[in-house]
Amino acid sequence: MTAAESILRTAAEAGVEICFANPGTTEMALVAALDRVPEIRPVLGLFEGVCTGAADGYGRMSGKPALTLLHLGPGFANGIANLHNARRARTPLINLIGDQASWHLAHDAPLTSDIASLARPVSGFFRSCQSASAAAGDMAAALAAARSGPGSIATLVLPADFQEGEGGGPAACPETTPAEKVSPARIEAIAQFLREDPHPISLLLGGSGLCERALLAAGRIASQHPIRLVAETFPARWERGRGLPRVERLPYLPEQATAYLEEDRALLLAGSRSPVSFFGYSNLPSEIAGSLERQVLATPDEDVAQALEDLAEALHAASTPGHAPLPEAAAGEGAGLPEPQAGPLDPVKLGLTLARHLPENAILSEEAATSGLPFYHFSENSPRHTVLALTGGAIGQGLPCATGAALACPERPVIAFQADGSGMYTLQALWTQARENLNVTTLLCSNRAYRILQIELGRAGISEPGPGALGMTSLDNPALDWVALARGCGVPGTRVTTAEELETALPRALTENGPHLIEALL
Amino acid sequence: MTAAESILRTAAEAGVEICFANPGTTEMALVAALDRVPEIRPVLGLFEGVCTGAADGYGRMSGKPALTLLHLGPGFANGIANLHNARRARTPLINLIGDQASWHLAHDAPLTSDIASLARPVSGFFRSCQSASAAAGDMAAALAAARSGPGSIATLVLPADFQEGEGGGPAACPETTPAEKVSPARIEAIAQFLREDPHPISLLLGGSGLCERALLAAGRIASQHPIRLVAETFPARWERGRGLPRVERLPYLPEQATAYLEEDRALLLAGSRSPVSFFGYSNLPSEIAGSLERQVLATPDEDVAQALEDLAEALHAASTPGHAPLPEAAAGEGAGLPEPQAGPLDPVKLGLTLARHLPENAILSEEAATSGLPFYHFSENSPRHTVLALTGGAIGQGLPCATGAALACPERPVIAFQADGSGMYTLQALWTQARENLNVTTLLCSNRAYRILQIELGRAGISEPGPGALGMTSLDNPALDWVALARGCGVPGTRVTTAEELETALPRALTENGPHLIEALL
Repeated sequence: MTAAESILRTAAEAGVEICFANPGTTEMALVAALDRVPEIRPVLGLFEGVCTGAADGYGRMSGKPALTLLHLGPGFANGIANLHNARRARTPLINLIGDQASWHLAHDAPLTSDIASLARPVSGFFRSCQSASAAAGDMAAALAAARSGPGSIATLVLPADFQEGEGGGPAACPETTPAEKVSPARIEAIAQFLREDPHPISLLLGGSGLCERALLAAGRIASQHPIRLVAETFPARWERGRGLPRVERLPYLPEQATAYLEEDRALLLAGSRSPVSFFGYSNLPSEIAGSLERQVLATPDEDVAQALEDLAEALHAASTPGHAPLPEAAAGEGAGLPEPQAGPLDPVKLGLTLARHLPENAILSEEAATSGLPFYHFSENSPRHTVLALTGGAIGQGLPCATGAALACPERPVIAFQADGSGMYTLQALWTQARENLNVTTLLCSNRAYRILQIELGRAGISEPGPGALGMTSLDNPALDWVALARGCGVPGTRVTTAEELETALPRALTENGPHLIEALL
Repeated sequence: MTAAESILRTAAEAGVEICFANPGTTEMALVAALDRVPEIRPVLGLFEGVCTGAADGYGRMSGKPALTLLHLGPGFANGIANLHNARRARTPLINLIGDQASWHLAHDAPLTSDIASLARPVSGFFRSCQSASAAAGDMAAALAAARSGPGSIATLVLPADFQEGEGGGPAACPETTPAEKVSPARIEAIAQFLREDPHPISLLLGGSGLCERALLAAGRIASQHPIRLVAETFPARWERGRGLPRVERLPYLPEQATAYLEEDRALLLAGSRSPVSFFGYSNLPSEIAGSLERQVLATPDEDVAQALEDLAEALHAASTPGHAPLPEAAAGEGAGLPEPQAGPLDPVKLGLTLARHLPENAILSEEAATSGLPFYHFSENSPRHTVLALTGGAIGQGLPCATGAALACPERPVIAFQADGSGMYTLQALWTQARENLNVTTLLCSNRAYRILQIELGRAGISEPGPGALGMTSLDNPALDWVALARGCGVPGTRVTTAEELETALPRALTENGPHLIEALL
């Protein structure tokens, strides 16, 4: 059995189901081996950023190891931005990168480059395979690394000649290290802290602290103590909607986030890091919480849900969380949905209409930037849904992430809630959605600007930017035609300019089979 | 004066005319400074690969330093693939990358990453600025590095707080090191070698060895000695057509390239490295020329044109090269253009029709892959033109490179001769062409496949690939609609399926103002 096949069999035995691929000549043996390992479904992306972003979305939703297959240094480089996001999301993800044949490497052929230097900033594990017989074992080590703790990025470089060599069959995966349990001592210390009633207090949930189990436990705690439940600003995966405790989103702008926490006596961290400003502003501190007391219940690498459950037990909180009478602030059940809107669209009407039509069990890949903010507020009473946010801030995540989520959860409706500027980074994802006939509805927020940069220019004291600066923030000359772009990728699209049109178009797109795009002119 | 303005003034004084930009929040001071330095024209790309590829095309055509402005590690990473090509092209290019404020960096905000590790593989010079007052001097050092020798990539990281600080005005650029002159001793040694008449012999021209001056000198040498003039397979810039000596292109596939050189007694290198196989194949050597004797007239980093002129003098070759009677094999003057073609399009008819209509002084950004091969043969008698080839093999160069070339040479018609698979990597370049109203005609070769990979599968012995492998090489499900994609980016497009349609559409697109796209179905 070739090393290529041995590698893929190793992956299949570890639960890998999909290979998000854009291969080249140095990956031909792996491509050929895909036909001999039918457990792994190859999914082609027409740009590597699509592959890595889709792998991230798949990994976040399935919890299984996501696999990419990329071509040499430059191909991998095209995928780095979305790997940066995946690393911040702690997604279990393995990159297979072909390299020049080992004996050809030193000849510095045109596509040769320093893959290790490119890969290390986004890889928790990096290895360049040294022989065909070592390849399957290297893959097992990469899989183990990717699946350890909440998940991480493992990158394995495979010279072309080793792929073709004798691989000796699949290797057994070493034990993975599960996310570490928080010690009873720390649980008791936090419980004691809460018993001292240091209210008001916010419980900042992040990472796996926003999964259903963690949220229900957090709801139990909040039913016992006057604790505000808060989500980190860009969660990897956030379960929301009816039946779950109400969780507010920490504001993005540092002065707003600081003001939000201002009245608190303490900040309790569960799966989130102590929040820092997204960017440094000369008159604002890096630490959002300033001098506020922080207590760490669980770090992002620890078992957050277990820690929250243990804390709820320690506090003798209601023991049947799903049906426990949650405090008013934490209960969305029964509250109404937004009313239909009218007139020209704006981010508020967009958020209201999306919240109104959010299907049960939807997955929302949210990269709507400034246009997406109001949605979070209006959707608290929407049916249960999952939000996948822009964890690392590297734009171009939304459309690929939605693609991967739809592959992970074919039975769930997926919505890509997408800004136009960032959407342009990886619009090739629409083609993969069409090819795989995925039920993804892209709601494209077309404000024809990098609006956040227009805001940031003002924040930087540039109240009247000149034509040069303005030109760097405006996408309106020419206007992008997203319906044409979607059609070019094989995805049917429609353009709406009013809330009434969106009120008609959105439910239709959500119920029709296959991908759709709605360009909402704002 | 802020450091941001000081940096840009330093660049302007060194001849920088354009800033190929996709900035973010950490570059706001530089964006604002653009309005105060009107000598530098900001050009927005909707994806960083567009910015770096356009900078490469601009640098290759203008010879002046090309400047990019990119956002943090992930933004830079999106530009790496085309920087890889620019590095192989030895383009003088400076990347300005904003970073988190120096005091904010340690807080590891979401967009923070190891920029140095990402940048080094594509940067001959790398520096992270340490203070506002040092910034202009750092920029001067970066400019000097980029302009030394034939050109190289310099990357300068600028923390946001330093950009805003006092910069003290522009810094003077240090002396640049011009490409080194080849010693008279080596010239004489090569002359002596040629006088011994080791024919047949090939003179492999690369780098600046394909500029007009170098080619005319090479033509003089070839008029004196039975030397075949050969171009490296993927030249950064190749002057071609009527009035210039005939130069053949070294074949891409290693067995063909080896066979091409097989009869030779020696290989004389002028601006090219000894050719190596693009990829390693188990039954083929890395070195194309095998055991063939190599003589180096000039390395790519040396002054190749001067070396060829000196050699021509040493050989007492005809002294008025432009009008010298070139040998038959080297004279295209007067030979006819291809006839009009008929019937369904294929790469041969495409190449013939393009060669037939190539306007005088055209620039051809060639990333047509397998569809582009026949063109080279048919265009030997076309009017004078410049070819920009895929130097580093990192696909997605063609459309951005054409964009930058059009900005460098607004008076010259530019043709992007583009394959569909690689075109999808950076199609956002079409928007910049529309915004800047550039005279770029994209001739999009739509074979709806990664055809080269289908060939490579066969070469790897996979004669009957299964559905998994085939799916990784096919773009036909769904078919991309390039006319729609172009329209989406504001570029008018038309689709042709026959040679007759192309015969009408191509001259029309070439004469109309602004960008056009012709999708040629193959």
